[in-house]
Amino acid sequence: MSNKSKQEQKEKAIGITAKKADDMAEWYGQVCLKSELAEYSPVKGCMIIRPLGYAVWEAIQGYFNKRLRSLRVQNAYFPLFIPESFFQKEATHAQGFKPEVAWIANKMEGERLAIRPTSETIIYDSFARWVRSHRDLPIRINQWCNVVRWETEATKLFLRSREFLWQEGHCAYETEEDCDRETLLMLSEYEALCRNMLAFPVMTGKKTENQKFAGAKYTTTIEAFMPDGKALQCGTSHNLGQNFAKSFGISFTGRDEKIHLPWQSSWGVSTRLIGAVVMTHGDDKGLVFPPFIAPIQVVIVPILFDATTAKVLDKARDIFKRLDENYRVVLDDRDEHTPGWKYAEWELKGAALRLEIGPRDVEKEQVVLVRRDTGEKISVAIKELDKRLPEIMKSMNDAMYKKAKAFLDESVVPVKGWSDFLAAIKDNKMALAPWCGKQDCETAIKEKTEGVTSRCIPFDQKKVSGKCFHCGNSAMYLVCFSRAY
Amino acid sequence: MSNKSKQEQKEKAIGITAKKADDMAEWYGQVCLKSELAEYSPVKGCMIIRPLGYAVWEAIQGYFNKRLRSLRVQNAYFPLFIPESFFQKEATHAQGFKPEVAWIANKMEGERLAIRPTSETIIYDSFARWVRSHRDLPIRINQWCNVVRWETEATKLFLRSREFLWQEGHCAYETEEDCDRETLLMLSEYEALCRNMLAFPVMTGKKTENQKFAGAKYTTTIEAFMPDGKALQCGTSHNLGQNFAKSFGISFTGRDEKIHLPWQSSWGVSTRLIGAVVMTHGDDKGLVFPPFIAPIQVVIVPILFDATTAKVLDKARDIFKRLDENYRVVLDDRDEHTPGWKYAEWELKGAALRLEIGPRDVEKEQVVLVRRDTGEKISVAIKELDKRLPEIMKSMNDAMYKKAKAFLDESVVPVKGWSDFLAAIKDNKMALAPWCGKQDCETAIKEKTEGVTSRCIPFDQKKVSGKCFHCGNSAMYLVCFSRAY
Repeated sequence: MSNKSKQEQKEKAIGITAKKADDMAEWYGQVCLKSELAEYSPVKGCMIIRPLGYAVWEAIQGYFNKRLRSLRVQNAYFPLFIPESFFQKEATHAQGFKPEVAWIANKMEGERLAIRPTSETIIYDSFARWVRSHRDLPIRINQWCNVVRWETEATKLFLRSREFLWQEGHCAYETEEDCDRETLLMLSEYEALCRNMLAFPVMTGKKTENQKFAGAKYTTTIEAFMPDGKALQCGTSHNLGQNFAKSFGISFTGRDEKIHLPWQSSWGVSTRLIGAVVMTHGDDKGLVFPPFIAPIQVVIVPILFDATTAKVLDKARDIFKRLDENYRVVLDDRDEHTPGWKYAEWELKGAALRLEIGPRDVEKEQVVLVRRDTGEKISVAIKELDKRLPEIMKSMNDAMYKKAKAFLDESVVPVKGWSDFLAAIKDNKMALAPWCGKQDCETAIKEKTEGVTSRCIPFDQKKVSGKCFHCGNSAMYLVCFSRAY
Repeated sequence: MSNKSKQEQKEKAIGITAKKADDMAEWYGQVCLKSELAEYSPVKGCMIIRPLGYAVWEAIQGYFNKRLRSLRVQNAYFPLFIPESFFQKEATHAQGFKPEVAWIANKMEGERLAIRPTSETIIYDSFARWVRSHRDLPIRINQWCNVVRWETEATKLFLRSREFLWQEGHCAYETEEDCDRETLLMLSEYEALCRNMLAFPVMTGKKTENQKFAGAKYTTTIEAFMPDGKALQCGTSHNLGQNFAKSFGISFTGRDEKIHLPWQSSWGVSTRLIGAVVMTHGDDKGLVFPPFIAPIQVVIVPILFDATTAKVLDKARDIFKRLDENYRVVLDDRDEHTPGWKYAEWELKGAALRLEIGPRDVEKEQVVLVRRDTGEKISVAIKELDKRLPEIMKSMNDAMYKKAKAFLDESVVPVKGWSDFLAAIKDNKMALAPWCGKQDCETAIKEKTEGVTSRCIPFDQKKVSGKCFHCGNSAMYLVCFSRAY
């Protein structure tokens, strides 16, 4: 194919041809590719995060690094390679990760090396050297890095790939209470990240025994619910108890001069969050980013007519310079495209606000802001822009959150028995059901339904009486079940 | 060993026992380990970058990301894995990296996968899809990531390890002129990074044919010179010509409607820069960080006596809160250590400025700032801190640069013939010699001297006449030779 015909094909293909409501999988793939958010790599199972997508990750990092700093968590970097023997030290952990570890082929001086699927083992080997006294605790370490899990299921951009980016926090504490408290604290940080920056709500709760992290005492989770009726686990915070401390020989001299084992936690969120944002907020025109993490927060589109071009462009450039100091702004002054063509392109790319400025606006010293989520037009005096923009962004984030919250609320359906449960799942809902807490029972549910799993035991619930919706034994608590990514 | 005796050992071992001037290798290792900058990993060839070291990398990233933004370079992320066939497409590149590539052992669906030693091939495979028209150019992509080179030589923290962190920029241009200009532009950005943030000077120039990047048309470099008489290559910017464009099928429709190949460049700096900072500025007390990249820019040490403790601590906390908004600050209010013990610890860790405040200072509404590089004491009125700190940091950075510049200047020794040359090398200098430019000649020099290599052909030189210092053929230019890391 010639370059020219490739170019033409690109222009023709710019719109999304699938409808989100009809075929979300096809829609999702088209949105990610056509907006140039990400693409599949020639390397099976891997993805390329294009600048538009990576900018979302950087915005998340920027916000979260500030939070980490205020929580006295320190960033560090540990090796990509993990000796095989490290995995074997914590038996449950080793068993859990065994099927998906990638190994190095090079001739080793010593033992076989894995590529990290998660870094508990290599980090806790260091903790064993670093921690001596209660004065060394708490220790709170975070790393931003790539991890590899040798997936065999089909790749989905951001949602499932052999390599992804994440942050993993690893802490050690003097007491169980400290560890419990901060395990939950980090989960609440994740919930706030989703609410304040990504504009979607999550359910928070504990994982069941079947679903908890390999090697943890318990796992807490934030679960989002996608428009196609599948839950998406968006982040987890694990209380590891003293399991890893025992396996890795981490101990400290306490205030009582005796030797103790520390309590540990680990917690992480990944580039999967970007997939959640795309699915939650996107529409048939393309990406819709919440304003605080939008790679393009404001796109300035000057409306140019020959007679007034210079005047309008000058003003547009002034505004660009002013906003560029505090926002992620693009000035689209290309002359080969009409404003309408530009609008469609920036809608596809999810620019949060479009700033239109034409000759009459220049005369009136105003601009028109257009919200990507609703299309609402807002006239703003140029001199008020600095004051109004943060307000408009905040109310846009709030409105997007509210809409997503209404969807989540209507998606959670209380059920009592097996037939209610099946009906709810068939209707693409999350079933909130009284459940017995038995591992065998959950395994049986998953098999019968071909993949429905427990998502969490919500924190927000009352004491349950009555019977398990599936096996009829006495129920321990309400649990959310659904299909999931 | 008990935890208590480990703790005691730690306290005893806090000082550096080696002298920088006597045994720099031993001194360097002790400084990195005892300051908790980094440590060797149980994984052979890998290192752990501890929070103190990682904070330096984050400061470099913060500065450089701003520069990249202003140069319209976009961050992105490409896969860790590279198919074997990608390497084979550009023959010289493949040959150059062959000995040090790590491979994945897992059963593949297709071909063998390498772990990236550098990402030209996988990125240019994408460029072939992304570039169609001259309107898509220039394209400027950067990624911050880990890379792996299967070193067989001994690991040196930050200087040589199997895995390290870096940024790699990859650009494609319409014309050779654009490519030439920006290859040099990026080198000048690196030179500015070293000067403005890391406070050391570099020589800038071209690499010889023997030393250039595998697959490049030419390589430009910044070379620093370490106190032990070895050069350290700190960053490179390559003009790749059209070599990769040919191999990867990257082409575009030009303004003339014809098909053209773009011109490409790539450029990178790594965590090696941290090693350069340690070696250049450190002293027998430990780390000395230039103020703009210091992980601890100001450490506040209150001088406490029973009667005045509350008053002094209150004021110290006030100052901490104020400075914490704009600087990396620590308030050392631990009561188990004397001020003297604290001074030694923060000197070891390279805190750029120590802020001392005692009861008399509180009365006089002043503090004493102590510069880590010179020990100079500066009294500053508390209300003037916000104004004076940036000035003091700037003059500290300038002074550290000036000192390092004087060392570099006196280390470059012009030589004419072989015996001068050997004398200069023996004296731990860089020999600046008229040279023929022949690859065989350089190979012979390296063999005869057991490791002396050309570092660069400095940009800053006049036309050379006369003979090659080694082989006696006619000289083409002055070239810097030395031992190197």
